[in-house]
Amino acid sequence: MNGNKAITKRDTDFAKWYTDVVTAAKLARYSNVKGCIIYEPNGTAIWERIQSIMDQKFKETGHRNIQMPMLIPEGLLRKEGELVKGFAPEVAWVTHGGDKKLDERLCIRPTSETLFSDYYHEIVRSYKDLPLKYNQWCNVMRWEKEARPFLRGREFFWQEGHTVHATKEEAEEETQKMLDVYKNFFEEYLAIPVLCGRKTEKEKFAGAEYTLTIEALMYNGVSLQSGTSHYFGQRFSKAYDIKFVTKDNTFDYAYQTSWGTSNRMIGAIIMVHGDDRGLVLPPKIAPIQVIIIKATNDEQTSILADKIKNELSNANIFTTIDETDKTFGYKLAEAEVNGIPIRIEIGKRELQENKITITRRDTLEKNHLSLDQDITSHINKMLDDIQNNLYQKAKLRKEKMTYHVKTLKEIEKIMDTQPGFIYAPWCGNTECELKMKEIKGLKSRCIVEENTQETCPVCGKKSKYIVVWGIQY
Amino acid sequence: MNGNKAITKRDTDFAKWYTDVVTAAKLARYSNVKGCIIYEPNGTAIWERIQSIMDQKFKETGHRNIQMPMLIPEGLLRKEGELVKGFAPEVAWVTHGGDKKLDERLCIRPTSETLFSDYYHEIVRSYKDLPLKYNQWCNVMRWEKEARPFLRGREFFWQEGHTVHATKEEAEEETQKMLDVYKNFFEEYLAIPVLCGRKTEKEKFAGAEYTLTIEALMYNGVSLQSGTSHYFGQRFSKAYDIKFVTKDNTFDYAYQTSWGTSNRMIGAIIMVHGDDRGLVLPPKIAPIQVIIIKATNDEQTSILADKIKNELSNANIFTTIDETDKTFGYKLAEAEVNGIPIRIEIGKRELQENKITITRRDTLEKNHLSLDQDITSHINKMLDDIQNNLYQKAKLRKEKMTYHVKTLKEIEKIMDTQPGFIYAPWCGNTECELKMKEIKGLKSRCIVEENTQETCPVCGKKSKYIVVWGIQY
Repeated sequence: MNGNKAITKRDTDFAKWYTDVVTAAKLARYSNVKGCIIYEPNGTAIWERIQSIMDQKFKETGHRNIQMPMLIPEGLLRKEGELVKGFAPEVAWVTHGGDKKLDERLCIRPTSETLFSDYYHEIVRSYKDLPLKYNQWCNVMRWEKEARPFLRGREFFWQEGHTVHATKEEAEEETQKMLDVYKNFFEEYLAIPVLCGRKTEKEKFAGAEYTLTIEALMYNGVSLQSGTSHYFGQRFSKAYDIKFVTKDNTFDYAYQTSWGTSNRMIGAIIMVHGDDRGLVLPPKIAPIQVIIIKATNDEQTSILADKIKNELSNANIFTTIDETDKTFGYKLAEAEVNGIPIRIEIGKRELQENKITITRRDTLEKNHLSLDQDITSHINKMLDDIQNNLYQKAKLRKEKMTYHVKTLKEIEKIMDTQPGFIYAPWCGNTECELKMKEIKGLKSRCIVEENTQETCPVCGKKSKYIVVWGIQY
Repeated sequence: MNGNKAITKRDTDFAKWYTDVVTAAKLARYSNVKGCIIYEPNGTAIWERIQSIMDQKFKETGHRNIQMPMLIPEGLLRKEGELVKGFAPEVAWVTHGGDKKLDERLCIRPTSETLFSDYYHEIVRSYKDLPLKYNQWCNVMRWEKEARPFLRGREFFWQEGHTVHATKEEAEEETQKMLDVYKNFFEEYLAIPVLCGRKTEKEKFAGAEYTLTIEALMYNGVSLQSGTSHYFGQRFSKAYDIKFVTKDNTFDYAYQTSWGTSNRMIGAIIMVHGDDRGLVLPPKIAPIQVIIIKATNDEQTSILADKIKNELSNANIFTTIDETDKTFGYKLAEAEVNGIPIRIEIGKRELQENKITITRRDTLEKNHLSLDQDITSHINKMLDDIQNNLYQKAKLRKEKMTYHVKTLKEIEKIMDTQPGFIYAPWCGNTECELKMKEIKGLKSRCIVEENTQETCPVCGKKSKYIVVWGIQY
């Protein structure tokens, strides 16, 4: 078997292991356009699964999709002071259309609050128009220096929800609700447990009143900010003049939210579930859940393979037969490196003994199943088991790497051995937050509770919150 | 009833009628970003239906989706001489990233042949790697002066397929096959009959050996180029060095194709099926096929509405209940202007008489259906009828506006009365093609057959082809 021979051991060099898995599973590759990634068919297919499931959740919670322009005129971008400070240093500027220099340069959207706010300014007149709950799936661009597939790059794919409400309460409820949608999606579909909380003032989104976040923990103890939901209050509505007539026939500025997740989720899947043999996909988001591999191409084998494929497909299990002319061994290895949850082998021996060989990707356990048994229910059960097993493994790891501490010494010791999520009291001052960064780049992940009973391990003053610290991608 | 009062009569001013329908049905609106359109939820929902159906057809024909970068470095764009001549005058140039001037400027993709070819150059080594059949759904940008929703604009949404093959025959077969996929999609789903043929040298895609096209005829007799499929031969593979080892162990350059359709299709739907009351959607691509409108909000009405909705939804008919607090009359008018194929009304009288009122959007016929009857099969049949009726109406109109002529006089007379598809002999010279343009902007739509038996109506020389002429969007 080859196919995964090129993968560095995960415990030897995690960063290299990650790149090797991305390459070996043909998820993405660097393009010749500096800082930009090509998302290859295997990677795109996972994104399509994620998109279709999340899109349904958004629609079930009353959201509709919209498509805004990808360019933002500089004047429009500059209307909200905080946002422009946050994003202007890292946008790509269009200055020429054909041979002509433009009167006003335009940036490729790094995020679309400005465009949505300008649109809402045009269409919101009365409380009767509200709420407006729109989402868009699109590409955005941030002029980063380095690129890592699914983690960091100039162009990436995401969804951004932007909503407008008549009241503070409703907007805040929306902010929380969409965080919950994200959390549930991560836990139920991606099999990744997450930490939820509120970003500190320093880490919140530029222009938001506050930002809620879900944070996932990778195999190596590094945190990945995985989805954020922002409450804007009236900041944008005042900057972009989104006013409406209230029920009481007065005027008010609207209350807004935005929330986003990106194809970074695929990076999380790799780094939470992957192993030394390559990618491991949770069944619920695997584009192919079962692959059938034939040892020979004789008629009898093909008839059986087709029969099983049809039976499983009819039960809505994503099943495929590898019909390429690669060798049997190569096909087995490729199914493994690609992370396909279940592999079914059919060869001479299987035919003789009226059975199939089934290998699950998560545990690599091999079993035989008699063809007299109900294959569909067996496979369905196994898919559930894999999904649960991946979630439980990730949950145990997260628990193991979660620490509750009170002193800097404890923090330093953790960082010398195994980083993770470090719960500690915090006084609320940005100076102390910045000092923490000196310990191997620790940053606040989120505030998880109010707490005035402890002392800040940095300055020794009274605590205001319990904050979770971690290192990040 | 109001809601469609703002629509200009179609026969009075077609261009204004079109814009009015787009606005009244809330499909799209102009943004404050010059030349760019906001595709609003009603328009986006239609695009999503189109995307999901076409995507399935692409997958059934062995294609996979991929996501390429949206930026093209100038050097890469300039590698294929014809393509750059065709597109360079109309691209948007990114010259700065953040505060820094870039060493090489990049354009926002107007189309992605260059990026795909560069990628194929990297990954194609042997005939065993071929064919590669990839597609991408994305936004592209062309720096047009004017914008019209769904018809022309700086940014638009489309799909572009790009394939690589080991042989000329296979690539040509692919070119034809994808045109057939487009033709079938238009006729079966959009209920729009199309004209198929090959573009002249003057009208073909920059860089192609030849271009196949489907052309649709709008209500006013104007042609809309609706999908194109290009055979590239080895032009790009030689410019971008896509070489492979053949079965005979020699080297050859690969054979390529590309093919695309865009959200212009929604423009075609409007201009083929729409009427004085607004949009008319073919059931097979309508995001909502049946809307239920209640005259009152009492319990009995709501129970019945829910029951019908559930029954129809269970039969996979896209059904919705209008639960907004708009007036009954407004809801009826809105369903009409939005082009929803079937409207079900439930009021006091319906409850008393144990029936529902059903209105089909295409003919505006109103009928009653007793609740003792099988509603699902009735609605399914009606949806089929509407789909067929729209197609037949469009087909009849196309036939009525199709002319077979031999002289310029005949052509001029047609253009003075009712333009359409004008079949005429042609000598094959570009000069004659350009002269035709003097007759109210006539352009060749496509070559439909070889024919050396006739004379060119412009120069009087022997004909080579029968060409269809028309005016275009």
